[in-house]
Amino acid sequence: MLIVQKYGGTSVGTCERIENVAQRVINAKEQGNQVVVVVSAMSGETDKLVQFSQNFCHSSYPLPNPRECDVILSSGEQVTRALLAIALESKGYKAISLSGQEAGIVTDFMHTKARIEKIHTQKICTLLEQNYIVIVAGFQGATLQGEITTLGRGGSDLSAVALAGALRADKCEIYTDVDGVYTTDPRIEPKAKKIDRISYEEMLELASMGAKVLLNRSVEMAKKLNVNLITRNSFSENEGTLITREENIMEQPIVSGIALDKNQARISIIDLNDEPGIAAKIFESLSKVSINVDMIVQTIGRDGKTDLDFTIPKTEVTQAQQVLQDFSHLFEKLEYDCNIAKVSIVGVGMKSHSGVASLCFKAMAQENINIMMIGTSEIKISMIIEDRHAQKAVRALHATYQLDQ
Amino acid sequence: MLIVQKYGGTSVGTCERIENVAQRVINAKEQGNQVVVVVSAMSGETDKLVQFSQNFCHSSYPLPNPRECDVILSSGEQVTRALLAIALESKGYKAISLSGQEAGIVTDFMHTKARIEKIHTQKICTLLEQNYIVIVAGFQGATLQGEITTLGRGGSDLSAVALAGALRADKCEIYTDVDGVYTTDPRIEPKAKKIDRISYEEMLELASMGAKVLLNRSVEMAKKLNVNLITRNSFSENEGTLITREENIMEQPIVSGIALDKNQARISIIDLNDEPGIAAKIFESLSKVSINVDMIVQTIGRDGKTDLDFTIPKTEVTQAQQVLQDFSHLFEKLEYDCNIAKVSIVGVGMKSHSGVASLCFKAMAQENINIMMIGTSEIKISMIIEDRHAQKAVRALHATYQLDQ
Repeated sequence: MLIVQKYGGTSVGTCERIENVAQRVINAKEQGNQVVVVVSAMSGETDKLVQFSQNFCHSSYPLPNPRECDVILSSGEQVTRALLAIALESKGYKAISLSGQEAGIVTDFMHTKARIEKIHTQKICTLLEQNYIVIVAGFQGATLQGEITTLGRGGSDLSAVALAGALRADKCEIYTDVDGVYTTDPRIEPKAKKIDRISYEEMLELASMGAKVLLNRSVEMAKKLNVNLITRNSFSENEGTLITREENIMEQPIVSGIALDKNQARISIIDLNDEPGIAAKIFESLSKVSINVDMIVQTIGRDGKTDLDFTIPKTEVTQAQQVLQDFSHLFEKLEYDCNIAKVSIVGVGMKSHSGVASLCFKAMAQENINIMMIGTSEIKISMIIEDRHAQKAVRALHATYQLDQ
Repeated sequence: MLIVQKYGGTSVGTCERIENVAQRVINAKEQGNQVVVVVSAMSGETDKLVQFSQNFCHSSYPLPNPRECDVILSSGEQVTRALLAIALESKGYKAISLSGQEAGIVTDFMHTKARIEKIHTQKICTLLEQNYIVIVAGFQGATLQGEITTLGRGGSDLSAVALAGALRADKCEIYTDVDGVYTTDPRIEPKAKKIDRISYEEMLELASMGAKVLLNRSVEMAKKLNVNLITRNSFSENEGTLITREENIMEQPIVSGIALDKNQARISIIDLNDEPGIAAKIFESLSKVSINVDMIVQTIGRDGKTDLDFTIPKTEVTQAQQVLQDFSHLFEKLEYDCNIAKVSIVGVGMKSHSGVASLCFKAMAQENINIMMIGTSEIKISMIIEDRHAQKAVRALHATYQLDQ
């Protein structure tokens, strides 16, 4: 098998931990696999360097030059990749470390948040054939002109998934310090169970939960490139969670997990003129300033007026209010509420099962929790409730769908 | 003018110090010059990384892989060069930072101690024409195949001198935390004076003194490429010392400086068979194991026997004794003395002045210092004396040649 493994910052934070990573890599190699390893910088190193570069900023130079930032940001992975190669060599294995550029990762020009455009795999393939363990610096690539770029948040995961896709690897293992994806956040419901297999689509819907182990950007790329993605704990022998195509999951439960998102705020536009195209104009204006609208509910109009409720990230409330000022002649009142939470039930099985929704509304009723907004998709039911009920709601739903069994 | 400036690790050790460097660079730029800046890693960073990589070594893997070492070693300069570019940009100047490879520095394959083979200056020239201040990571280059290499000890100075030569720069300023080259070590003779101008040849002979500001490797390259080299203090406005061709120095003093070397040991082979070719064989054997023999004195033979005295670095005494065992059938006794010092008087003016030597012997006699060995070259007189007299000898010679005036 050809395996791509990715180790995050906490997994390579000290010499002992790098030794531990080396041992895991060797285990995979000894099982007869070809192994490509993607590493992050030591945790904390990148932040330290960013802060350093920001010391030179002031009101008329608010941000350091992105090109130079990428030169600095990519230095952390440069150290860890070489250290891991040395650790593997010291244990008697053939190992070689490559920069993103050497690994053939070609990106666009968007410094500090570049997108991978292409991966030239020839060099890695040749080295694998020569029995090398190939270590690649995560988070970085280079433009066609050879300028170093970095891939933004979660960039090392992305490097690993993209390499796995380009190399047609049998699996891509993402190592962090948690065991995998859980049916819900174990800090909220201690009875939460690790999920063995989950589809890309469910994983994307569980984003708010999954973000702790994997960003949507990587899951989306895995889905697109059909990469079998596994999130595992680098400090334990547990199996982890396989994120794969729906077809690869034999026994599909109706509900796979309960997600909780406390980062949304609700905006209510009250008594908006109920004319065609007004909502479209409002949402267009918000999208122009890159505000992500999540759930939308519009009441049925009466007397030529309607109420429009929607949710956006809490951090964007101020900006949204400014945008909405332009429409103030069209509505009566603008309200916002930051004390909300979004609880979602996610499961591919919903598609073919009825009664899933009614079960969850019943559970909320039993707990005396008022549902402010409801949104549904093929594999998800989301509810906006009061913030203070969040934990109770998650636990009730977890029990209702017997996820603890 | 086109100026190459090089700043060492202590000059870029903190944000404030990088600001200070940026201001110096701007001053040079504002005077209408084109400026190329070579920077080292922050002091301590490189050592820290080397230690880290050595943690993986053990008896059967004594040294980390040199290729991977170079990847790690070159990361320090990657950070400082980008930080300086950001600092300059934040002050409103056009600046761009380049890796050794981007700067066109091509080296051989000897990882961790590579030699510069060629410099392709086109990229730097284009950037200078576009009014950029160009910052180059010191200490590093790349092979023709694009593998990162480092240049070994004093490598950043070497980068600067080689770039100055290739760019035909008007001068190459090496910034450290001392004011320049002194007539002798000021810790030994507080009356020591900073030298304004000195020839390459004298600088090379003053190595033991000069090593604190500049390694011979850089001076040799400056001489070869005809680079006007200036060592200056990055924390003061003092002029520094210009190291240049002899012809460029108008008023050449007879003696430029007094050097002291306490790292030599004397080996004495007593009653060696006085046969032709024996000395040659001995020194050949020593050179085969890379022992640098410095001064050699052979007494006139009598009764078919002779005494052979020479000096070598103290650290190589044990190894030398082992080599000399092979010749033990040819001599009576082997002695060594680590309590010696070499005092040297250096000056291009000696070539055309007589009486320089007799003055120095007289000074030693007046101080009651016994001279064990004497060696001379066109521009140097060296004496081996007892270690304990070293300071007294240096001060006496400094006064004799009126270097304090």
